[in-house]
Amino acid sequence: MSVQPTFNRAALEQLLGKRFFYAPAFSVYGGVAGLYDYGPPGCALQANVLEMWRKHFVLEEDMLEVDCSIMTPAEVLKTSGHVDRFSDWMCKDLKTGEIFRADHLVENVLEARLDGDKIARNATVEAKADKDEKKKKKAAKVTAVRLQDEVVQTYNEILAQIDNYSGPELGELMRTHSIKSPETGNDLSEPAVFNLMFASSIGPTGQFPGYLRPETAQGQFLNFKRLLEFNNDRMPFASAQIGRSFRNEISPREGLLRVREFTMAEIEHYVDPSKKDHARFNEVASYKLKILPASVQLQGKTELLEIPVGEAVEKKIIDNQTLGYFLVRIHIFLTKIGINPERIRFRQHMKNEMAHYACDCWDAEIHTSYGWKECVGCADRSAYDLTVHSNKTGEKLVVRERLPEPLVEEKLQLEINKKVFGPRFKKNAKAVEDHLASLDESALVELKKLHDSTGTFSVTVNGESFDITKDLITSFERVTVTTHIREFTPNVIEPSFGIGRILYCLMEHVYWVRPEGEQRGVLSFPPVVAPTKCLLVPLSTNEVFVPILQKVSAELRRNGVSSKIDDSGASIGRRYARNDELGTPFGITVDFQSAQDNTVTLRERDSTKQIREKIEVIVELVKQMCEGKTTWAEVSASYPAFESQEVDEK
Amino acid sequence: MSVQPTFNRAALEQLLGKRFFYAPAFSVYGGVAGLYDYGPPGCALQANVLEMWRKHFVLEEDMLEVDCSIMTPAEVLKTSGHVDRFSDWMCKDLKTGEIFRADHLVENVLEARLDGDKIARNATVEAKADKDEKKKKKAAKVTAVRLQDEVVQTYNEILAQIDNYSGPELGELMRTHSIKSPETGNDLSEPAVFNLMFASSIGPTGQFPGYLRPETAQGQFLNFKRLLEFNNDRMPFASAQIGRSFRNEISPREGLLRVREFTMAEIEHYVDPSKKDHARFNEVASYKLKILPASVQLQGKTELLEIPVGEAVEKKIIDNQTLGYFLVRIHIFLTKIGINPERIRFRQHMKNEMAHYACDCWDAEIHTSYGWKECVGCADRSAYDLTVHSNKTGEKLVVRERLPEPLVEEKLQLEINKKVFGPRFKKNAKAVEDHLASLDESALVELKKLHDSTGTFSVTVNGESFDITKDLITSFERVTVTTHIREFTPNVIEPSFGIGRILYCLMEHVYWVRPEGEQRGVLSFPPVVAPTKCLLVPLSTNEVFVPILQKVSAELRRNGVSSKIDDSGASIGRRYARNDELGTPFGITVDFQSAQDNTVTLRERDSTKQIREKIEVIVELVKQMCEGKTTWAEVSASYPAFESQEVDEK
Repeated sequence: MSVQPTFNRAALEQLLGKRFFYAPAFSVYGGVAGLYDYGPPGCALQANVLEMWRKHFVLEEDMLEVDCSIMTPAEVLKTSGHVDRFSDWMCKDLKTGEIFRADHLVENVLEARLDGDKIARNATVEAKADKDEKKKKKAAKVTAVRLQDEVVQTYNEILAQIDNYSGPELGELMRTHSIKSPETGNDLSEPAVFNLMFASSIGPTGQFPGYLRPETAQGQFLNFKRLLEFNNDRMPFASAQIGRSFRNEISPREGLLRVREFTMAEIEHYVDPSKKDHARFNEVASYKLKILPASVQLQGKTELLEIPVGEAVEKKIIDNQTLGYFLVRIHIFLTKIGINPERIRFRQHMKNEMAHYACDCWDAEIHTSYGWKECVGCADRSAYDLTVHSNKTGEKLVVRERLPEPLVEEKLQLEINKKVFGPRFKKNAKAVEDHLASLDESALVELKKLHDSTGTFSVTVNGESFDITKDLITSFERVTVTTHIREFTPNVIEPSFGIGRILYCLMEHVYWVRPEGEQRGVLSFPPVVAPTKCLLVPLSTNEVFVPILQKVSAELRRNGVSSKIDDSGASIGRRYARNDELGTPFGITVDFQSAQDNTVTLRERDSTKQIREKIEVIVELVKQMCEGKTTWAEVSASYPAFESQEVDEK
Repeated sequence: MSVQPTFNRAALEQLLGKRFFYAPAFSVYGGVAGLYDYGPPGCALQANVLEMWRKHFVLEEDMLEVDCSIMTPAEVLKTSGHVDRFSDWMCKDLKTGEIFRADHLVENVLEARLDGDKIARNATVEAKADKDEKKKKKAAKVTAVRLQDEVVQTYNEILAQIDNYSGPELGELMRTHSIKSPETGNDLSEPAVFNLMFASSIGPTGQFPGYLRPETAQGQFLNFKRLLEFNNDRMPFASAQIGRSFRNEISPREGLLRVREFTMAEIEHYVDPSKKDHARFNEVASYKLKILPASVQLQGKTELLEIPVGEAVEKKIIDNQTLGYFLVRIHIFLTKIGINPERIRFRQHMKNEMAHYACDCWDAEIHTSYGWKECVGCADRSAYDLTVHSNKTGEKLVVRERLPEPLVEEKLQLEINKKVFGPRFKKNAKAVEDHLASLDESALVELKKLHDSTGTFSVTVNGESFDITKDLITSFERVTVTTHIREFTPNVIEPSFGIGRILYCLMEHVYWVRPEGEQRGVLSFPPVVAPTKCLLVPLSTNEVFVPILQKVSAELRRNGVSSKIDDSGASIGRRYARNDELGTPFGITVDFQSAQDNTVTLRERDSTKQIREKIEVIVELVKQMCEGKTTWAEVSASYPAFESQEVDEK
């Protein structure tokens, strides 16, 4: 299999449209940016990739798969922080009202200026011919203007950490570097925050606000107690979910890479925060990854470090074994489905670009004609989500673990006199009591000092101050406490896959054009994910082939191999070419000899080489290759090549 | 396998909750009516049923599967009629503001009165004990009041066609029969229309309204041209889609049966309206169905007619072969996954209950503890959708078919004088011209009479009248027209599956309790859809069993059979009981003998009988049974029963 060293996006997108892998949704109505429909081959490819995902993660690691509601009450997403913080910065052309995503705008304008500078310096501008029409329109015009060396350096430094700026910082950059509305040159508004969730309202009263989930994770967290129980209270474990999520992007772009509705596959792996080791880490420790830590990016650099994951964890470049384990599993999955391993890197998030819930995050980025694109996020969400939901609802979302040895500790313990407490503080009594109960050892030590010296101390609860006088306290002493149970809120490691993005990258990576023929595009999907596994072609429309085709088709189906018959009048070469474009790895031709001796020919897509054997043998070989139990290289080495007189592939 | 003759909903629902088949979504936040999450067994059951669906329909009938956008621009759903007509009638308690769905309210109140009448007459009230709490709360109170015989008859007639009333008619019924707010006795508002779609807004401007799709169908219709081309312009063909849809129900009830978010599987089968025959109809013609035609219901009756589908089509009870073919395919599918065939009927819609887009519709209804419930709709949408979208957008959504013989016809043809036409009618000229061009032969004949006798005629366009005088017409004569291409808008037959409803019915049908033990619930899923196929249990936690378990588990996985190891300390009997509740059909026990002779025991869930064979034999048998290639009856007849000393299932 030869893979194009450079991308040819225009030709690929034409093929994908023609063969209906996907298409803009609602195009007869003029379309809506960021919404796409998958046609039959795209839909089958997606189903196969999801099937692989399920086997690779859910089955092999015994995860608990769930399927949760998309429509989510506002209160849940308020608690999770999404209502306040799941947003991008937008700014407006002050005259035309056109809206831009602020970081993309700054990026486009500075890139255009750097391109202009290169032209002015007589350097070659990097080929950007294949940028799609929409991008071209939005991108700033390139004008040949030479910049000072320091300016070039500043621009490059800004671009290297473009994801790291807050809204006000982007506004500052726009002022400092005189960034205007690209097409009109008009002034722009200050960046304003725009929440990315689609809002709706649940039920007939109109008074119950809801949002479409922006991630599948929250449904998993809210079911934590049920899942832990289902897992017989054992830790660690993971839940998983495949489903649709929604983000109301300000300006969707780059085809399937930034859309408003998308299929995700997410894993929430729950661990004891004091034991982030992974039982199977030794299986992957020597596996090498190409990584780009945050520290390198903050220096304005993008050099990759290739390192065994064991070493990266040891050196604390990757925080813990569980995170490292999943990075490797992600890498194996991506290469299994056909992503080029040379075009995968793991980039650590910088502080400002991290989602509000994450304390560390590594993205699997895939290199495409649009540059490096985040396709899988692997975040350490710590105990964030379980804690906020638990605090809000009063429902304990914790693990209770019997200690191997009871824990005996000396602790400062404060006991209140409820009889006095209630009448004194009335409606606030409960809140003050809870506050006292929540204080840790060091806070109690301080308070005891005041208590012992002045006989009173005060605490602030909900902004109000309360004096805790001696009469309110029955005892405030050091006691010995024996604990049999340890209670903790698990931390969550979350590998989160954007399926549409992965599919698009895959299609870019497996696309090539046969050198011998003009316009002979091929999609070299690995058999296991190919939309259809086998094409069946009769030599002609002669009736004699019909029962043989039906027999082969039934045999393949019985063996779980999907096939399509193409009995159109087109030449065999043209029918094969059509199926190369659909990425069908195998083709079986039925000819007059088949009717006599029960043999058929088998053609492999990438090599166009053929063999000829009995139907039963061919079906078994196709099955084995589709299940990854053997390869064409092995098959073609064991069976004699068949030179067809009838098929001209040129 | 013995199936409970009556339902025990309370016990079943307890089991389903305990084993996390599904649970109310967001329950830690108090829950939201009509939103549910599927836990691991429910999620796996759903995946298996969908897999079966895909095999049974998409693969076997070579359908074109697509995956379309859920978020839909308002304009699309305005055109499809959903914005104006996809609604239910609601009424409000005038004092408390509580909102009811009007038809459900009338139904509940009249049913309660009939129950009260039965008590008063000393008859036994049908056991309604198992109605869930929510229903009980909403349902009207039952008071023992004897009704007049005529009133009983009237109520029964109303209930038999409760789905057939419009909002004003429901209001009239409420007045005539003094129906008040069930709990408060307050007056109710007149029924008002409530649109069932969830509204949102697309993009950052807030000026682009959208809805969540209420069905997956529209995305398929809008891609009609691409799909036809993908199918090499051949007719008939079908597209299919599995995905989430949303309906903002007024008062969700009856668990999974009426929810606000649900997975559908829909087929749009496109046919030539003049050829609604089906190529494979002869394969199903003698298949018997139990049907309930509209005409029977309109007489206030509910007797079923059992009839071969061939005869039903011949007698025009079922309109055409394609519709009949799909009813049979639906019936086969439902019984394959485990629905009790005795509890399936096909009910035809009455005129008023039909969706606005349908001209005929048969529901596959499944009998449950809640009564007969619609689970699959099979509607003839005629050319409705393709026509309205085409009219709105100007995009031709038609099939062009080369005629075997050119068609030569005499036609009355009216040619206008454009030079006079334009200046005379100015801005209306185009509309009047289009109107004249759209007239059919019989209309033209009438106009020609006027034209010939009086020299003028008038037409009404957009409510305005226009005189067509002689000077506007260049010719109005009979001409011979030769047509080579026939152009037509296909009709659509749509089988539409509510997956959640089907899953719930299935769980009711396969649930039973072992007579020998208290609380020994079993879910007898057919192996092919069971969430997990095989339980693996070591006799004890002894280390010696670990490698054998891993070997069996790996062998099963290699053969595509999902399994779970239960190595908890519980007794074997208890571990089996837990898995009976999960519906796992097979159990393999590893004991000390296994370590010596490589044999294990295989237990079948429904009979609790066991056999003992070598691991390889057992794995192969389990695989064969899960793929439906053999049955336990056959297996247990061929292998000697094994009586375990160790396992006490009592």
